[in-house]
Amino acid sequence: MTEFTRRAVVTGAAAVTAAAIAQPPISRPARAATPPVGKQAPSFYRHKVGDYELTQISDGARTIPMPEGFVRNVPREQALAAAEAAYMPKGQVTIPFNPVVVNTGLKLVLIDTGFPPGTSPTTGLFQANLAAAGIDAKAIDIVVLSHLHPDHINGVRTAEGGLAFPNAEIKAPAPDWAFWMSDENMSKAANDMMKGYFANTRKVLSDIAGKVTRYEWGQEVAPGITALDASGHTPGHTAFAVASGSARMLVQSDVTNIPELFLRNPDWHVAFDIDPNKAMATRRKFYDMAAAEKALIAGFHFAFPSLGHVEKDGAGYRLVPIAWKAVF
Amino acid sequence: MTEFTRRAVVTGAAAVTAAAIAQPPISRPARAATPPVGKQAPSFYRHKVGDYELTQISDGARTIPMPEGFVRNVPREQALAAAEAAYMPKGQVTIPFNPVVVNTGLKLVLIDTGFPPGTSPTTGLFQANLAAAGIDAKAIDIVVLSHLHPDHINGVRTAEGGLAFPNAEIKAPAPDWAFWMSDENMSKAANDMMKGYFANTRKVLSDIAGKVTRYEWGQEVAPGITALDASGHTPGHTAFAVASGSARMLVQSDVTNIPELFLRNPDWHVAFDIDPNKAMATRRKFYDMAAAEKALIAGFHFAFPSLGHVEKDGAGYRLVPIAWKAVF
Repeated sequence: MTEFTRRAVVTGAAAVTAAAIAQPPISRPARAATPPVGKQAPSFYRHKVGDYELTQISDGARTIPMPEGFVRNVPREQALAAAEAAYMPKGQVTIPFNPVVVNTGLKLVLIDTGFPPGTSPTTGLFQANLAAAGIDAKAIDIVVLSHLHPDHINGVRTAEGGLAFPNAEIKAPAPDWAFWMSDENMSKAANDMMKGYFANTRKVLSDIAGKVTRYEWGQEVAPGITALDASGHTPGHTAFAVASGSARMLVQSDVTNIPELFLRNPDWHVAFDIDPNKAMATRRKFYDMAAAEKALIAGFHFAFPSLGHVEKDGAGYRLVPIAWKAVF
Repeated sequence: MTEFTRRAVVTGAAAVTAAAIAQPPISRPARAATPPVGKQAPSFYRHKVGDYELTQISDGARTIPMPEGFVRNVPREQALAAAEAAYMPKGQVTIPFNPVVVNTGLKLVLIDTGFPPGTSPTTGLFQANLAAAGIDAKAIDIVVLSHLHPDHINGVRTAEGGLAFPNAEIKAPAPDWAFWMSDENMSKAANDMMKGYFANTRKVLSDIAGKVTRYEWGQEVAPGITALDASGHTPGHTAFAVASGSARMLVQSDVTNIPELFLRNPDWHVAFDIDPNKAMATRRKFYDMAAAEKALIAGFHFAFPSLGHVEKDGAGYRLVPIAWKAVF
């Protein structure tokens, strides 16, 4: 390179160069420093599955000190090491929330909801990102709930307690509805987390029970969207296959919580799994299927845009996030 | 789960449930199916390095049949297998382009430019995404070019050939300027690709040579942004360290082309490397440093938002993309 430089000095082009270097600085009008913008991009991502238009929508994420027992069956240090290996802040864990909208051409379908606006400074962003994505909440025809945990259902309500999707039919998995709405089950809730979940299900859904249709596994919850038994996380926890033409995507819901811990280590039990052994078996079955068919997977707790492919990797799996396409 | 369901049937809560199921379908006003939106999200991403506000901005990506000799020193089948393993379309390769804007508080600095609007249906998106990010092209104070390849410099021009950043000083690495502006070097161009590069450099920069300042490695090209020798890809190819307070990010420019091939396999020679052995040595040195300090890296050819951490992995490296934060 030094050689190139020396040679260039004796050429005509280099003479032009030298002259250019010798020019006085260009005078420019003095301008004030540009202030920072201070705002993130709207966090939605559009893609297609066959003829269907899908929009992954971020509700935000929660970064919290990793709770004791977050992973039930490994020491906290080991779980923290996995989080730190994924570049999460030391001692903390980040859990993102990503509902998905499917426009089948016939129906506008929302799968899971996130939280109502204002739930926390870093969550409850779904409605704002939905609007930024050019989708009117009033146009949603069907809200499909994968299961009845708060981060999946609370967004059916506005911040004021109204209906966030006033024209939508709400569909809940029949086994989850039966489980969470059972007073007998509630009376047996073993800890504060479970008590909170039972109370929350009632608070959000009881007075609109008439608007909630129960669905069964194997049924289409909307055209081209089939409910798949993914139980274990909760009794009625459901994944979905979205199919259009020969294209197919899997919506995994909470087959894993954050993939950095639980897809890498499918035998780890997240605190939220009601039947951890069944959840683990579901996980392996689901990912073995997804890896074999090289299926695109949407993961509610994957980092936005929450899409990727899963591959076997040693005793666990790895997630390969999709490459963002800037043109739809 | 069947057990839960059976139990629930005999409880009061389940009676409510059954009643709800028995209700007639809710009547809703008939609405036309919602048309698809058909538009991608604006593709920018905001983050902070110390006090600096950074914006990663997609210019788009090009997906093309993988050219013969794209990887010079491995069989085409092997290179194609690596692309396919990264879920690129069969037989093809996708190359994204991602400039970055740094607002240091004193100066608004653009590092590399992408292409002018309209260059192709999937590139030339920089200006639109810059505007979507709330940044005025006229407010850019400094355009720093990492090297003089078309995807890094052509965007200094508008589609009509004017100046895309009319108030900006343009800074080019002195060794690259000397190399590409040398008529002697141009006369020795060994193939059409190189001939095209020499012609393009002149077309884009010759008549604005007076606006172009040459910089040397080790210098600050803007407050807190230091030019680092990353030669090999081109004689003057430059990476950057962006430092604010104790925070530091590396802008790798083209230390690798697409990471799926060349970061995984640092000894592979991409067709665009002028001195492939030097480029390879630079690559290893750069990533060993980045891995050791767990540095955040911005990569011009990483998938948007083009940020990640690099780790040693066997004989090569792996890229761990950052987790998107929906709140700035």
